[in-house]
Amino acid sequence: MRALALTGGVGGAKLCFGLVQILQPDELRIVVNTGDDEEFHGLYVCPDLDTVMYTLAELSNPHTGWGIRNETFATLSALDRLGQETWFGLGDQDLATHIVRTNMLREGKSLSEVTEHLCGRLGLEHPIIPMSDYPVRTTVSTDIGVLPFQTYFVRHGCEPIVSSLGFEGSQSAKISAKFSEGLNSSDTLIFCPSNPYLSVAPILSVPGVRERIERFEGTRLAVSPIVGGQALKGPAAKILEELGEDVSCVGVARQYLGLCDTFVIDELDAELADDIRNLGMNVLVLNTIMNNNRDKIQLARHLLEAASESDGS
Amino acid sequence: MRALALTGGVGGAKLCFGLVQILQPDELRIVVNTGDDEEFHGLYVCPDLDTVMYTLAELSNPHTGWGIRNETFATLSALDRLGQETWFGLGDQDLATHIVRTNMLREGKSLSEVTEHLCGRLGLEHPIIPMSDYPVRTTVSTDIGVLPFQTYFVRHGCEPIVSSLGFEGSQSAKISAKFSEGLNSSDTLIFCPSNPYLSVAPILSVPGVRERIERFEGTRLAVSPIVGGQALKGPAAKILEELGEDVSCVGVARQYLGLCDTFVIDELDAELADDIRNLGMNVLVLNTIMNNNRDKIQLARHLLEAASESDGS
Repeated sequence: MRALALTGGVGGAKLCFGLVQILQPDELRIVVNTGDDEEFHGLYVCPDLDTVMYTLAELSNPHTGWGIRNETFATLSALDRLGQETWFGLGDQDLATHIVRTNMLREGKSLSEVTEHLCGRLGLEHPIIPMSDYPVRTTVSTDIGVLPFQTYFVRHGCEPIVSSLGFEGSQSAKISAKFSEGLNSSDTLIFCPSNPYLSVAPILSVPGVRERIERFEGTRLAVSPIVGGQALKGPAAKILEELGEDVSCVGVARQYLGLCDTFVIDELDAELADDIRNLGMNVLVLNTIMNNNRDKIQLARHLLEAASESDGS
Repeated sequence: MRALALTGGVGGAKLCFGLVQILQPDELRIVVNTGDDEEFHGLYVCPDLDTVMYTLAELSNPHTGWGIRNETFATLSALDRLGQETWFGLGDQDLATHIVRTNMLREGKSLSEVTEHLCGRLGLEHPIIPMSDYPVRTTVSTDIGVLPFQTYFVRHGCEPIVSSLGFEGSQSAKISAKFSEGLNSSDTLIFCPSNPYLSVAPILSVPGVRERIERFEGTRLAVSPIVGGQALKGPAAKILEELGEDVSCVGVARQYLGLCDTFVIDELDAELADDIRNLGMNVLVLNTIMNNNRDKIQLARHLLEAASESDGS
């Protein structure tokens, strides 16, 4: 098997953790959203890349899903003392990642190269790949104006009402070389249970990506991040509602029309399977709630089995 | 009185602390060596400026004289995990200073402007001024090669044998505007008890500075950092010896020929007063060992009194 996983942060990273326990490093590529990236204090921060990296390295904070466990915030307090805005909670250990990344980028390395270096240092063997080495910045049009993603997400705690999303820079961005290779050479594409608007749409906004996924010849699966009408994490449900979409796995499935063959919903949503079949997708009903490593591995195993079977069909 | 203090790190900063308790912000300018500055992990670090700043803000580590009290090193540990060299011990709180400075410099601010901003945020009212806004980098020629200053000082713990010092960039550097103003408008110049080779010589290497101090019309005092043939802090004694100079306050005084009217030695060295008078300087014998704030203020007061008297003479 050669799988390509597309993911955002926390929820998607959990599934990636499961995939990594089953697949060899040459059997899996993980492509990560970089629309959330932002500079803070001149340091280049990639929240989704870092969440995936920390999760796979088993460094992540189990309570939040993002950030590093046993983190401290001494630098942030000192930044506050120096008059800096500190609403984005950069931890001391986490800062090392941003410092090294920023320095390598300034030296002319690409984000792909930097990520590969960081992953290597953390002992990760499976490739973690930014969707693009070019800047793409998610912006959120809201009732209080157009906000950079992190301003919407962290500073305002997702409270503003969303009317649309933009992906600044995407028109001139290029797909990263390893993402492109992955699209060419993989037989299985997995949309992790990430926010379709905030995590997956930025990836699809990179020129050529949507079309290449539409034409992808292997098996394409997507896992709903909405279970029982609620987001397991983050503002997915709130945004679906504000954009006039069904707040359900069916609403999510509609975002994947033409991009996905098999849509994976949770056992709690089994009754909605027919609504999704009516969209022209196969449905797989699984336990998608990942409370522990066993859940993550089990979901990954079921997905990969389903992909193998459909491949043979 | 309008005083201009020239200083390096720990020892000089102690005297500056004393001066600041006596003089008003418009009566004192503190000019700081930047030859020790270095980039670590892409962050611009100014050890002497920071030591002075932290000392005056009463944030400094009382045990080391440099760094911040109650400091932690979580980011440094994480930088180590990411494969960075971590022989330069950047603390978590200290890093905030370097992050803000680096970001402001990248935005086009001068080091003088950045320093003024940082001092303002720390509640400091007396101007702390880098000797130059241009890069001047002290290099140390040793038996193991020419070393950047911090490599000599921290990485090798001052162990290599010094044959000479260089000040890279000094030829094209310019004196900072506020240092220049200070030279024009001050009536008292104080060389703090800093290393004459490592802290004072870089300041003198900036084009025009030595000549302007030679022509300075007010009172010029220098305080010996060597007491009883030993450096109170750092490698001053070792370097004096390696460069073939007397390891004593007399050896230091010779570095100030033509630059200083009154040389201040410690009570422990009172017997050497005549040797210094023979160099053509006045001698002031004081307690120069500053173990606590009272010592710092007392030394500052005695210096300022001596300056006032000689001014009237």
